[in-house]
Amino acid sequence: MITSMDFKVTTPEQTIWLTKNGSIEIIDQRHLPHQFVVEEITSVASMCTAISDMHVRGAPLLGVCGAFGMYLAVRESTKEITRLYIEEVAQKIIATRPTAVNLAWGVQRAKELVLKNIASKDLLEIVKNEANRILDLDIATCYSIGQHGLKLIEEISKEKGGKPVNILTHCNAGWLACVKYGTATSAIYLADQKAIRVHVWVDETRPRNQGASLTAWELKQAKIPHTIIADNTGGHLMQNGMVDLVIVGTDRTARNGDVANKIGTYLKALAANDNKVPFYVALPSFSIDWSIKDGKQIPIEERDEREVKYISGLIDGEIKEVLLTPAKSKALNYGFDVTPARLVTALITERGICKASEEGLAKLFPEYQMQ
Amino acid sequence: MITSMDFKVTTPEQTIWLTKNGSIEIIDQRHLPHQFVVEEITSVASMCTAISDMHVRGAPLLGVCGAFGMYLAVRESTKEITRLYIEEVAQKIIATRPTAVNLAWGVQRAKELVLKNIASKDLLEIVKNEANRILDLDIATCYSIGQHGLKLIEEISKEKGGKPVNILTHCNAGWLACVKYGTATSAIYLADQKAIRVHVWVDETRPRNQGASLTAWELKQAKIPHTIIADNTGGHLMQNGMVDLVIVGTDRTARNGDVANKIGTYLKALAANDNKVPFYVALPSFSIDWSIKDGKQIPIEERDEREVKYISGLIDGEIKEVLLTPAKSKALNYGFDVTPARLVTALITERGICKASEEGLAKLFPEYQMQ
Repeated sequence: MITSMDFKVTTPEQTIWLTKNGSIEIIDQRHLPHQFVVEEITSVASMCTAISDMHVRGAPLLGVCGAFGMYLAVRESTKEITRLYIEEVAQKIIATRPTAVNLAWGVQRAKELVLKNIASKDLLEIVKNEANRILDLDIATCYSIGQHGLKLIEEISKEKGGKPVNILTHCNAGWLACVKYGTATSAIYLADQKAIRVHVWVDETRPRNQGASLTAWELKQAKIPHTIIADNTGGHLMQNGMVDLVIVGTDRTARNGDVANKIGTYLKALAANDNKVPFYVALPSFSIDWSIKDGKQIPIEERDEREVKYISGLIDGEIKEVLLTPAKSKALNYGFDVTPARLVTALITERGICKASEEGLAKLFPEYQMQ
Repeated sequence: MITSMDFKVTTPEQTIWLTKNGSIEIIDQRHLPHQFVVEEITSVASMCTAISDMHVRGAPLLGVCGAFGMYLAVRESTKEITRLYIEEVAQKIIATRPTAVNLAWGVQRAKELVLKNIASKDLLEIVKNEANRILDLDIATCYSIGQHGLKLIEEISKEKGGKPVNILTHCNAGWLACVKYGTATSAIYLADQKAIRVHVWVDETRPRNQGASLTAWELKQAKIPHTIIADNTGGHLMQNGMVDLVIVGTDRTARNGDVANKIGTYLKALAANDNKVPFYVALPSFSIDWSIKDGKQIPIEERDEREVKYISGLIDGEIKEVLLTPAKSKALNYGFDVTPARLVTALITERGICKASEEGLAKLFPEYQMQ
């Protein structure tokens, strides 16, 4: 196990890739931010473990993992490939995170192509290309979101005469949740590439601390100035003119523009609104749920109280868990909250920026209007 | 060291007391919520250590500690007591937490009485009685705050037909910060004594986790139903009708009713306002700063970034610190924020409940009007 805290990332800014010998490599994210561990995945079984044990996480990334899982299924089979085998493997992969919509989507998309070409001698090549296409699609989507968001940052940078643009973000909507660029972070990386000065306020994002661990680690790797804050701090910063804009991601957006995101997002949206700080949500259109009228219909996941009562951190070179509360006190752990559209300045999608409303979304995505 | 996690409190619900043999005993709060440790304080030196190393904390409690420190100074002196000796000890105690106004106040009040009676053969008795008076005054003040707050809880309990009243609190404004009852918690304890059903949402209160450790421990001891939540959660609870009222404490209140309290209080006030949940601040009039016009004039303490990057918890029966962030990422740690009076439903003081405004306060405290 690597215990150095200041390591070089050998494969920068990408969470999953195909190796020359045909295996898959991923970043085992359980060890971040303390240790950088690359894991080689050579079988369906190890891909399933990587997904279920959260070596990888983040909706877009899981979709790509699902597709590569099907590729591995074809690759590792020593017998003739049958429909039954393919269906069984697909089910097995999907079952590792049954509520992850993207995972099922990636698996299904690869599976259908395999079934269609099951007799082809190029089957392995076909499914490999499909998995790579899904990977490339995610990169392209995130890049487009970043291009649109970049304009917002550029504008503020000009207004501030080139002084650093202070961006607050919550949780990890970075490349670690996708393949590359991320959603909320994409514009930040593109701004940095254009030498626009930015500084990121990173909400630690209790209880799972994805901000303090993953987002901070990403930004540290990219050498982007950033400061970690307790989730309690953002309001005070906004009251004192220390935040120029907020950009967060979303797990699901309703057709009226209500946004479900990591618990605590709503509190930051309220503070932004109270202090006239623009509040943006960056999202691939994939995460818009056109079947849902408003945020009230979005179910909010309740997670294990253990995530509130215990926390993991580095001690003596090892990652260990400590108890934070009275052992017998109860805790409650909602994973997400809903930010009403009225508090969202705009949505940043791969097709452009729009108002957080049914009309706003309909302009960018007219094909969904009739649903 | 006691390592059992479920112990009996031998001296319940009080942070400091005089023993029969004339020494002082305190709860060494550094070990809570994991270990209950009572420390005997027999000298000025050990009182100074207890204050500076935060065995005790909380403005009201520090005032009492300061007075008992002067008592110990008289008690331990083997020579004739001189003005110089008393002045030196007073300075030494105050220097342990130089910004703590209450500490200096308690020390000064005891010191003046000692100097006035320096030749008296009853000097030890006089200073002991004075320290005990300061202790009793704090208990009485907190009890009165609780009596007034109790009415608010009773009213909601009636409206709910006796169903549990859900109260959200932030940080620790409990008896561990005072001598007994606490400020924000006082009404909760009195409601419980009257068999009014309550349930407390305990904000863990990052970065120092006073809620998850101290407030949760207090409530657990008192067998009051409570649930610990990440600070991010309160907004979602209020959106879903799961909070009937919020009660918090304050470190300093401006004469216009703006309230400085633990960082993150402002975010909860915004959520309460957005969801029409009453938001109360409980305070002894001592913490009103009549010299300050509004909250903008309250300086906000910036604390060590270490408190954000590391956290202490129980592991293998010992309290240890773990690193949460990339070792080289920066963190920023403001201790407090200011909640504007417009978001405060009312102030609960030892004299009664009033609007969070200059007029409101002037009605309860007419003697300060002319300042």
